[in-house]
Amino acid sequence: MGEDRIRIAVAAFDGVTPLDAVGPLDVLARLPAVTVVLASRGGRPVRAEFGLELGPGAALEEVAADVLCVPGGPGVNRFLADAAAVDLLARIGGQARWVASVCTGALLLGAAGLLRGYRATTHWLSLDLLPVVEAIPVEERVVVDRNRITSAGVTAGIDLALRLAAELSGVEAARRVGLLVEYDPAPPFGAGSTRTAGPGEAAALREERTALQLERRRLLAAAAERFGPAPG
Amino acid sequence: MGEDRIRIAVAAFDGVTPLDAVGPLDVLARLPAVTVVLASRGGRPVRAEFGLELGPGAALEEVAADVLCVPGGPGVNRFLADAAAVDLLARIGGQARWVASVCTGALLLGAAGLLRGYRATTHWLSLDLLPVVEAIPVEERVVVDRNRITSAGVTAGIDLALRLAAELSGVEAARRVGLLVEYDPAPPFGAGSTRTAGPGEAAALREERTALQLERRRLLAAAAERFGPAPG
Repeated sequence: MGEDRIRIAVAAFDGVTPLDAVGPLDVLARLPAVTVVLASRGGRPVRAEFGLELGPGAALEEVAADVLCVPGGPGVNRFLADAAAVDLLARIGGQARWVASVCTGALLLGAAGLLRGYRATTHWLSLDLLPVVEAIPVEERVVVDRNRITSAGVTAGIDLALRLAAELSGVEAARRVGLLVEYDPAPPFGAGSTRTAGPGEAAALREERTALQLERRRLLAAAAERFGPAPG
Repeated sequence: MGEDRIRIAVAAFDGVTPLDAVGPLDVLARLPAVTVVLASRGGRPVRAEFGLELGPGAALEEVAADVLCVPGGPGVNRFLADAAAVDLLARIGGQARWVASVCTGALLLGAAGLLRGYRATTHWLSLDLLPVVEAIPVEERVVVDRNRITSAGVTAGIDLALRLAAELSGVEAARRVGLLVEYDPAPPFGAGSTRTAGPGEAAALREERTALQLERRRLLAAAAERFGPAPG
């Protein structure tokens, strides 16, 4: 493949939410002159959430990418505890033209110092954690700040990928992909955000996740302690 | 796991569109008392579209499922040419409580005789092929006819999965999943269907796919020749 192809790396790790990774991958891979790879530590297959095994095409240690896209999932906590893995994201993201995250992938970008001073979003359950890594939380589905593009939870990665597709290849190419993946959504029950869900529904999920979220806060605080002086 | 769990099998094959399979899998696996497995011929890993490798958890030859969900993709043609594989779907689907497809997975259900006399949908590029397998094409995002539930292309599998979630576990459980995967879509360019795309955009894609679609028609006609007398 020629050097003028756009190289997109989607990070993968044990406990990644499969739709966080596959949504953007499936959308972005349909662009012309784009090469998308799934990249994991050592290029090893990962055990995604729900027992699905994903086989990567590259090792994070060796990837150079024009676009880094980091998905989230319950495995984010284990990833955060691995400073060497976080450093790999810092290196790849620091050299990329675009740095993207889906869902709680924003916490990984944040731990890598890649969201310091940037407006960003993440899964609604983790939005309050962004300030721990000096990011500015924004309650929108997709947030673009300079070359950082972050999305809300899971399915929002599809919206993000179409926005990014337009940035990379133009609106016409993005519309073509939208038609190929028939992205004309019709959510049947209208409860896909905290705006439309009943207050009890969101509270119940917050309650279930308390321990996971507390651990996340602690891990993010530890990552932030490694930050150098404030950027910019 | 107890026998009262709902067993959902998502079929996988070489050339499957990853988002067709992973969208419903990620949604349905979040339901209570559900076990979702990806199932392939011989339980072998499959090479999905865009080079992604998916590791299955079961063999199609051995699966018994309450719900069969069949995704689509360019690999549908090769699958159609394998009568033994199509027969596996006929067996699993014939015993399942719900038979679902995403995108051109409907052509596989059709070849297995599972859509004869049923209203169904598929990716817009393949909608005209449904009558070849005696299905009644309907241009909607999700079509339910008795215990068959079929969706339009790729991303429509998420809408289908939420509808199916409500059938399996109730609307409250489906709303909870919708909130977890934050399904509050905001398509940025509004070109996700032939209604909203310019006529030139759809025509260009039809043109590109002519050879693939002709081969599909031929393979489906061959499958239909194996059908017995009209059902019902």
